Amino acid sequence: MKMILPIFVLSLLFSSSYAAVQDFCVGDLSAPEGPAGYSCKKPAKLTVDDFVFSGLGAAGNTSNIIKAAVTPAFSAQFPGVNGLGVSVARLDLAPGGVVPMHTHPGGSEVLIVVQGSICAGFISSANAVYFKPLKKGDIMVFPQGLLHFQINAGGGPALAFVSFSSPSPGLQILDYALFGNNLPSELVEKTTFLDDAQVKKLKGVLGGTG
Amino acid sequence: MKMILPIFVLSLLFSSSYAAVQDFCVGDLSAPEGPAGYSCKKPAKLTVDDFVFSGLGAAGNTSNIIKAAVTPAFSAQFPGVNGLGVSVARLDLAPGGVVPMHTHPGGSEVLIVVQGSICAGFISSANAVYFKPLKKGDIMVFPQGLLHFQINAGGGPALAFVSFSSPSPGLQILDYALFGNNLPSELVEKTTFLDDAQVKKLKGVLGGTG
Amino acid sequence: MKMILPIFVLSLLFSSSYAAVQDFCVGDLSAPEGPAGYSCKKPAKLTVDDFVFSGLGAAGNTSNIIKAAVTPAFSAQFPGVNGLGVSVARLDLAPGGVVPMHTHPGGSEVLIVVQGSICAGFISSANAVYFKPLKKGDIMVFPQGLLHFQINAGGGPALAFVSFSSPSPGLQILDYALFGNNLPSELVEKTTFLDDAQVKKLKGVLGGTG
Amino acid sequence: MKMILPIFVLSLLFSSSYAAVQDFCVGDLSAPEGPAGYSCKKPAKLTVDDFVFSGLGAAGNTSNIIKAAVTPAFSAQFPGVNGLGVSVARLDLAPGGVVPMHTHPGGSEVLIVVQGSICAGFISSANAVYFKPLKKGDIMVFPQGLLHFQINAGGGPALAFVSFSSPSPGLQILDYALFGNNLPSELVEKTTFLDDAQVKKLKGVLGGTG
Amino acid sequence: MKMILPIFVLSLLFSSSYAAVQDFCVGDLSAPEGPAGYSCKKPAKLTVDDFVFSGLGAAGNTSNIIKAAVTPAFSAQFPGVNGLGVSVARLDLAPGGVVPMHTHPGGSEVLIVVQGSICAGFISSANAVYFKPLKKGDIMVFPQGLLHFQINAGGGPALAFVSFSSPSPGLQILDYALFGNNLPSELVEKTTFLDDAQVKKLKGVLGGTG
Amino acid sequence: MKMILPIFVLSLLFSSSYAAVQDFCVGDLSAPEGPAGYSCKKPAKLTVDDFVFSGLGAAGNTSNIIKAAVTPAFSAQFPGVNGLGVSVARLDLAPGGVVPMHTHPGGSEVLIVVQGSICAGFISSANAVYFKPLKKGDIMVFPQGLLHFQINAGGGPALAFVSFSSPSPGLQILDYALFGNNLPSELVEKTTFLDDAQVKKLKGVLGGTG
Repeated sequence: MKMILPIFVLSLLFSSSYAAVQDFCVGDLSAPEGPAGYSCKKPAKLTVDDFVFSGLGAAGNTSNIIKAAVTPAFSAQFPGVNGLGVSVARLDLAPGGVVPMHTHPGGSEVLIVVQGSICAGFISSANAVYFKPLKKGDIMVFPQGLLHFQINAGGGPALAFVSFSSPSPGLQILDYALFGNNLPSELVEKTTFLDDAQVKKLKGVLGGTG
Repeated sequence: MKMILPIFVLSLLFSSSYAAVQDFCVGDLSAPEGPAGYSCKKPAKLTVDDFVFSGLGAAGNTSNIIKAAVTPAFSAQFPGVNGLGVSVARLDLAPGGVVPMHTHPGGSEVLIVVQGSICAGFISSANAVYFKPLKKGDIMVFPQGLLHFQINAGGGPALAFVSFSSPSPGLQILDYALFGNNLPSELVEKTTFLDDAQVKKLKGVLGGTG
Repeated sequence: MKMILPIFVLSLLFSSSYAAVQDFCVGDLSAPEGPAGYSCKKPAKLTVDDFVFSGLGAAGNTSNIIKAAVTPAFSAQFPGVNGLGVSVARLDLAPGGVVPMHTHPGGSEVLIVVQGSICAGFISSANAVYFKPLKKGDIMVFPQGLLHFQINAGGGPALAFVSFSSPSPGLQILDYALFGNNLPSELVEKTTFLDDAQVKKLKGVLGGTG
Repeated sequence: MKMILPIFVLSLLFSSSYAAVQDFCVGDLSAPEGPAGYSCKKPAKLTVDDFVFSGLGAAGNTSNIIKAAVTPAFSAQFPGVNGLGVSVARLDLAPGGVVPMHTHPGGSEVLIVVQGSICAGFISSANAVYFKPLKKGDIMVFPQGLLHFQINAGGGPALAFVSFSSPSPGLQILDYALFGNNLPSELVEKTTFLDDAQVKKLKGVLGGTG
Repeated sequence: MKMILPIFVLSLLFSSSYAAVQDFCVGDLSAPEGPAGYSCKKPAKLTVDDFVFSGLGAAGNTSNIIKAAVTPAFSAQFPGVNGLGVSVARLDLAPGGVVPMHTHPGGSEVLIVVQGSICAGFISSANAVYFKPLKKGDIMVFPQGLLHFQINAGGGPALAFVSFSSPSPGLQILDYALFGNNLPSELVEKTTFLDDAQVKKLKGVLGGTG
Repeated sequence: MKMILPIFVLSLLFSSSYAAVQDFCVGDLSAPEGPAGYSCKKPAKLTVDDFVFSGLGAAGNTSNIIKAAVTPAFSAQFPGVNGLGVSVARLDLAPGGVVPMHTHPGGSEVLIVVQGSICAGFISSANAVYFKPLKKGDIMVFPQGLLHFQINAGGGPALAFVSFSSPSPGLQILDYALFGNNLPSELVEKTTFLDDAQVKKLKGVLGGTG
C-alpha cells in the first residue's frame, strides 16, 4: 500500500540535504563575529534551551532615579535570535519612571503596553512630533534611528515589551552620549548650543569627564 | 553669542532635505502594493494614530473548539509597520486551547508569555524537535518558515504577544492548508500518505471540498 | 600610440584594489559559518572546480516506495554558490513517483520540467490552491515557505531541475517532520487533529518514536 | 471530540489575517514599477497560470550567425517570479554556437547542462580566468556582474537552463554594448584601446552608428 | 567569416529580454512611493540628465550663525540614485562653522575633506567617543544612526563631500528635534534632564513652541 | 531634583545591553571573511584611527600611458567601512587621461568632479548610451554592474571622488579581463568577434598569454 514506507525511504531520499540545512544560526559568542552577526553554534550541540530565554521573567530594578529598567533579549543575551532579524526587550517603569530620549541605530521598534499607561513619542527627520498616552494593549511603532521616549503616564507601575526588527538594534541614550563619557565640554557645547553650566551640571551627574 | 540662532537658520540650512526624508512609509492600503510592501501615505496626512494600534487590547474570542485566538497587527491591520521589518500579534489561549501546527513563510517569530503557561515547539529542517513548557516571562524563537505550535499548558487562560521579523510574515496553518480548501483528496493522500478516511473526515470538519 | 600600453600600467594603476576584490565567497565547509553563510576559501586556492559541480549528472536512486529522488546542489554540496543567492537541485520521479508535501523555509523555487510530465502545486497563506500538470519545458514557481508537491503525471520517468533564491533554502518534508522523529504522538495529535491510529501508523512507517 | 471542528472555527480564528497575507507579488506589468519590482496583481485575480510559464518549452531560433538563442523567463516575461529573488532562462546552442562575452548586472547565475557539451567560463575582478568544458548534468556558477561566456563544445546541439538570483538579472552583451548603439567610435577607441578599423568593422556588423 | 554578424542577429537573439531589463529605477517624484523608494520613470523617457546632477557645484550659503550649509543629492533632489543604495551631499563650513550633533537614521556616511580642516566625531552605542581633526584628503566613516558632528578646525573655509549607503539616509538634527518643533517643554525636560530655562532659551532660538 | 542622577543610574539601567551593541564591524583582515564581509575587530581595541583613512590625500601616480590613477578606500584598504554598505575612491586624471571601460560587479557608483572636467558615460542593459561632459561640482551615477568610463575632458588635470553602495564593489576593467590574463586568444575571439591580430596586439600590450 502506498503509505507503507520503510523507514529508510525518506532519509535516503534527502539524506545529503539534511547536513546542509541552515534554518537558523544560534550565536556562538566566543567565535568570530561578522557584519551579519555571530558565528553559528554547531547544530549537533543545540537543545531547546538555545531557543528559549527566561531573563525577561523578572521585573528590572527600578530603584533608581529615573525609576525605569530596560532588560534586553538581543543576540548578545539571547543568541537564539542571531541572524533572524528580530529581538525583544522588557521595559519596567515605576511610578514617575522615564526612559529618556534615545535611538536604536540598527532597528525599528514596536512597543506593547502590558500593564499601566505609558506616554510614548518620537520625532521624525522632518521634525514632526508624534506622541500619545498609551493604555494597556496599545502598541506603537518607532521607526529605525529616530529619537523617541517613554514615560509612565499612570499612577502605578507600567510594564511593556518591545520588539525590534534586528537581533542587535543597538541603543544610544542621548544624555549618556552627550554627558556620560569623555567628549570635551567644549565640543558638546559647540555642537548642541547648550550652555556651559548646563553641560557641566549634567556631566557631573552622569559621570562625564572633559 | 553662539546659541542665539535666529529661527530661520537651521531651516534654511537643511531646507531642501526635509522634503526628501523618508524615515517610514505608513501603508496606504488603497494604493498599489509592491514586493517591498504597500505604497506610502503622504507624510502631510499622518498623525500619531498612524503609528498607534489599539486592536490588541481586547482578548480574542476563544469560544471555539480550539479555544484559541490570534489577533494580528501586521501591515494590513496596522499600516504603520509597513516597510519597517517588524510586526506583532496577540495570542489568547483558553484552558485547553491550541494554536495548531503552522508556519510563517515570511518571517521569524519571538513568543513572549505574558500570562499562564504555554507548551511551544518547532521542528527543524534537519528534523530535530525542540519543545518546552514556557512560563510567564519566558520567550522562545521560531525560525522563519518552520512548523511550530503552541498549547495552553496550564489550568487557566494564557496570553502571549508574538513579534515577527517582517511587517507581513504570512501564516499557513497545516490543517487548513490540507483540509480546508478544494485540494482534491486524492492529491492530499498522495502527498501526505494519510488514509483516505482520515482526509475525508478532516475535510468534513474544516469545510474542504474535492 | 594610445594603445601601446606597457604591461605594468594597469596593474600598477589598480594594484591595491585587486587584493580587495570579493566577487564571490566559495564556502570553506571547515571554517566558521555565520548567518550569511560559510566563511570564504582563500582566493589563491581556488580553481575552476570550485565553481563547477558534477553531482547532478546521474539520476538519483528512485528504487524506493515514493519512487522519487532529490539531489541538491546547495552550498553544503556545492560551496561555489555560497553567498550568491542561488542554488539548484535535481528531481527524479520514476513512474508513480511523488515528492511529498514540503516547504523550503529559506527560499523560493522555480521548477523546470526537462523530461516527462509532472503535476505540481502549492497552497497559499490565503488558502488558495494552485496546481497544474506541467509538460516538458514548462516552469512553475513556488513562493518561499509555502507547502507544495510534485507528482509524476505521465507513464514514464520524469526529470526536473529546480532553482532556488538562496544557496541554502532548507527543506522541511511534512510527513518526516510530523512522523519521522521523537515528537510525542500526543503533541502531533493535538496540533494536527489527526487520529491517534493514523499518527501511530505513520510513525511506524517513518520511524518516529514517542 | 477534539477533531470535530466546525468549519467556521479556523476561519474565524484567523479571519483578519487572511486579507493581509502577501506570500507573493505576481507582477502587474501595466502598473507602476519600483526599485523592488512591479506592483502586485490583486490576489483575487490570480490563477495557477500566473505561476506557470510555458515559453521555455520550444527551442529558440538558432538560425543566426552565432547559432545561439537565449529565451528568458525573467519577471517581464514571467511575472510570477516578481519579488521572489529568482528567475530562469533557456539556452540553445546549435553546433558551433556561442553566447558571447556578457554580464548580468543584477544577479548571479547557475548554468545546468541538459544536452550536449558546453565550454563555459568567467573572469574575476582579480583577473583570474576560470573555464572548463561541461558535460550533460554538470552545473557551473557565474558570480554577479562578472564577464562570462558559453560555447558549444560538442558536435551536436546543446541545451542548458540557467537560474538567476534575481527576477530581473539584466543582460549586457559586450559586443552589443560597444558596437551596437550610437556610442561614438572615438569614445569606444579611447576607452577600449581597440583599433579604429576594428571598431568600425564591428559597428558595421552590429549596426552601431557614430 | 565569424565576425560578419548581420545587424539583426543579437537583437533577435535577446529581443524579448531587452524589454525586461531594469538596471536602474530613476525616481518619478510624482508617482507612488513605496518602502524601497519612488516608482520608476519610464525608460523611454530617460536622458543622460536623469543620471547627472549639477546642484552640488555651488557653495551653500553659510551666511548664518552656524556658518555652515549642507546641500543634499538624495533621491528627492537627484532621482537618479533612487533604488541604487547610494547618495551624496556637499558640506560647506565657513570659518567657525559647525554642523551640529545629528544622525542619519537610514544610512552610514563617509566624509571626504576636499578643502580646509574639519574636526569630526561620533559616539557609539557603547558610549565610546571617536573624534579627530581631519585634513584635506582624509576620510572618516560615521556608522548608521549614531550621533556625529563636524566643526571647521581651520582658519579658512572648509569643503567636504559626504557619501551615504542609502539614496534617502534621512537627517535628524538634535537641536532641531528637541527645540525646533511643538514638543512640550515638559516632555523635553523629562526625557533629557535639561533645565527648564535651558530648554526655553533654545526653544526661543529655534522657534519651538510649547 | 529630577536631574540629579547619580552616575551609576543609567549604567546600571542598560548595563547588559552595552556589551551587546554592534553599531559597526571594523574589519579584521587577518580573520575569516564571509559573504557579508570581514570578521569584526574587538570593540575594545578600536581607536578613532580605525574610522579614519588618510590614503586618499595624495594624488595617485598618473605617469603612465593612460595618465590616470584610481586609489580605492574599499574595506580591504579601509576596514572601517566593512559591513556598512558604503566606500569611496579617488580618481586622478592627468591631461589626456582615461579610466577605460569597466564595471563594478558589486555596487553602484556616484562620481563627484572636484577639479577639471570629465566626460563620463555608461551603457545600459537595454543598450542605451548615456554620456556627458561634467564640470567641477557635477555628479553622475553609474548603476551597478554596467559598463562605464571616464575621460579627462579638459586641458588640465582632473580630480574626482567616487562613492559606492558597497564596502567592496569590485572592479573589472574590460581590457584587463580580455587581454591581461591567460584566457586563450581563441576563446577571446570566439566570444568577442574581435580579429585575431587585434587580440594578439592587445595581449602583447597588456601582458596576456595564450
